[in-house]
Amino acid sequence: MSVTAAQGFRAAGVTAGLKSSGTPDMALVVNDGPQHAAAAVFTSNRVEAAPVTWSRQVVADGRVDAVVLNSGGANACTGPQGFLDTHRTAEQVAEALDISAGDVVVCSTGLIGELLPMDRITAGVTALAAGLGPNGDAAAQAIMTTDTRPKQAVTSRDGWTIGGMAKGAGMLAPALATMLVVLTTDADLPADELGSALRKATALTFDRIDSDGCQSTNDTVLLMASGASGARPSLEAFTAALTEVCADLARQLIADAEGAHHDIAIRVVGAASEADALEVGRSIARNNLFKCAIFGNDPNWGRVLAAVGTTTADFDPRALDVAINGVQVCRAGGVGADRAGVDLRPREVSVEVDLHAGPAEATIWTNDLTHDYVHENSAYST
Amino acid sequence: MSVTAAQGFRAAGVTAGLKSSGTPDMALVVNDGPQHAAAAVFTSNRVEAAPVTWSRQVVADGRVDAVVLNSGGANACTGPQGFLDTHRTAEQVAEALDISAGDVVVCSTGLIGELLPMDRITAGVTALAAGLGPNGDAAAQAIMTTDTRPKQAVTSRDGWTIGGMAKGAGMLAPALATMLVVLTTDADLPADELGSALRKATALTFDRIDSDGCQSTNDTVLLMASGASGARPSLEAFTAALTEVCADLARQLIADAEGAHHDIAIRVVGAASEADALEVGRSIARNNLFKCAIFGNDPNWGRVLAAVGTTTADFDPRALDVAINGVQVCRAGGVGADRAGVDLRPREVSVEVDLHAGPAEATIWTNDLTHDYVHENSAYST
Repeated sequence: MSVTAAQGFRAAGVTAGLKSSGTPDMALVVNDGPQHAAAAVFTSNRVEAAPVTWSRQVVADGRVDAVVLNSGGANACTGPQGFLDTHRTAEQVAEALDISAGDVVVCSTGLIGELLPMDRITAGVTALAAGLGPNGDAAAQAIMTTDTRPKQAVTSRDGWTIGGMAKGAGMLAPALATMLVVLTTDADLPADELGSALRKATALTFDRIDSDGCQSTNDTVLLMASGASGARPSLEAFTAALTEVCADLARQLIADAEGAHHDIAIRVVGAASEADALEVGRSIARNNLFKCAIFGNDPNWGRVLAAVGTTTADFDPRALDVAINGVQVCRAGGVGADRAGVDLRPREVSVEVDLHAGPAEATIWTNDLTHDYVHENSAYST
Repeated sequence: MSVTAAQGFRAAGVTAGLKSSGTPDMALVVNDGPQHAAAAVFTSNRVEAAPVTWSRQVVADGRVDAVVLNSGGANACTGPQGFLDTHRTAEQVAEALDISAGDVVVCSTGLIGELLPMDRITAGVTALAAGLGPNGDAAAQAIMTTDTRPKQAVTSRDGWTIGGMAKGAGMLAPALATMLVVLTTDADLPADELGSALRKATALTFDRIDSDGCQSTNDTVLLMASGASGARPSLEAFTAALTEVCADLARQLIADAEGAHHDIAIRVVGAASEADALEVGRSIARNNLFKCAIFGNDPNWGRVLAAVGTTTADFDPRALDVAINGVQVCRAGGVGADRAGVDLRPREVSVEVDLHAGPAEATIWTNDLTHDYVHENSAYST
């Protein structure tokens, strides 16, 4: 299901031999129409991978017929040859499906700074085209890197559906993370409305997960609409449903982030502006000392305040309140309830910071910093 | 030696019982004059500890007669009671030494959010005053937290001397780190010149070490001048010598940072401005994925480029060069020399990034992210 839950889409996933693990590593999702409207958001990292450079151009005209994805190599920092390889991959998909290469999005994920083995990519494209079908599970499997499980989500409304798949794991940070996300819908909406809905949905979901503060070179969130349901939802209704699917996938990304033992929701309330709330939330989410404390089941609220203090947000240090898992351990910038009362054994952790400076609020989702994170990321390329 | 290397200073270190480990935890450094000029720089964290709030006022008039320091408790986020405790500590020192409380700087370090046991502090002050002498080693020992060794440095010029002691370990970040530093000199310089020299020296040293990107609530760097040598060096000569002592202490802080296995010098050259070079250097120094890779002896230069790409510095991604330990693994934004040629077994690691955008450069010192860092910081308060 997932990317094939909406009418008008087929998908495939195969093992092309890009990963030494021998697990599936290439996926293809095809929009059979009748419409081929699309929109996408990409990493804001200025060092962007070749497939991102290519795919920006593909999406620019609002039409996408297919997306081919590979794990096992990011094709980032690979120079002109890397771009030629992306282009060639799109052309091979186009030939196999009798479409235009200029309508084929390419996504890659894996180690930066290595050229892809193009003979294997070529064979993979052939196998993908031959294997296209109504089940999206193999595609969701094939885009995984250090993910431990595939991530899929589906929601349906009155006669139309949105489905999606995602891969994440490391480099999760706003705008965006190491994430590849493919969203499909059979609703009939033009590309500009898809773009508007996608920007709103990602701003509230993928942009607010910040696992390790590191931003990737390859992030892509693609939305394709087939119009196959014949339904034309209002932009408002479609944006709401899309946000729901993106939120579901975003939470799955955090729940499966590299080496994490805790999923942490940092809710900042009483902010003078949403921007202030986001700045404070991200500052806490990126504070290694705080993240280590949560790993140690230690409600060390002093590290929360120390992180808040580095921001430019509007607040009075003597007014700050902090609650961890519902226990108000810091009141008015000083000692509150006994920290021994905080139970940090559950995986889910909530941190609520009240800036007492206004009515705005925002929530950032992050993870703890663990031995497993250090292990996975010190061994990734070796 | 160290803080007592310059003429006119006495020091002491005692065990007041603030730390469960039973190791020394209070220190006192006294300036016997004839001059009592002083200057200081403090954390820029807006959540500042009570002793920082107090000491800013003490230093404001350019005169300091003594500094009392304690480990085993930061006295941060402790509200009005915390400030009263700092004030009382200064008054006790003043009474014991027959000086004014308004000339006594107070520094604290340790866990945030706990009140200090004032009965032990009071007894500690009495013991410190009784133990004052010409050896600074006990004082350097007493300010340690998770430091594994005391940090001291001394330099002498024509008839005048600068000495210093420091504690660091965690929360090392620019402007400043969890560091307490006391610098003493017998040169005869007015407070405004001391302040000018201190700001220049710290900007090039303590402000450029960034162990874990976390900024403390208690950072203090204090410089006291006794004038006891009778020498009046030029401001230029004094600033140069002071920078030398600060650089020595800063390198000792990085070399003993919590759980670090590698000391990493990130040199950014070819920058359009020094600010650009610093932004790029800090972005790399704070990238957890890069820091984990170095821990794994993995010259993963893609993570360096991914960090550079998140900055606003002036550069063309296709022009970036990266060398790790002298091997140019990335050339013109793409694959350079074989990464297998990089030997990352030595503790010292050099990363050089050439932005090819101008003549400016800067170096940031940081550490790798290790299992030991996670362990120490997940167990700190528990």
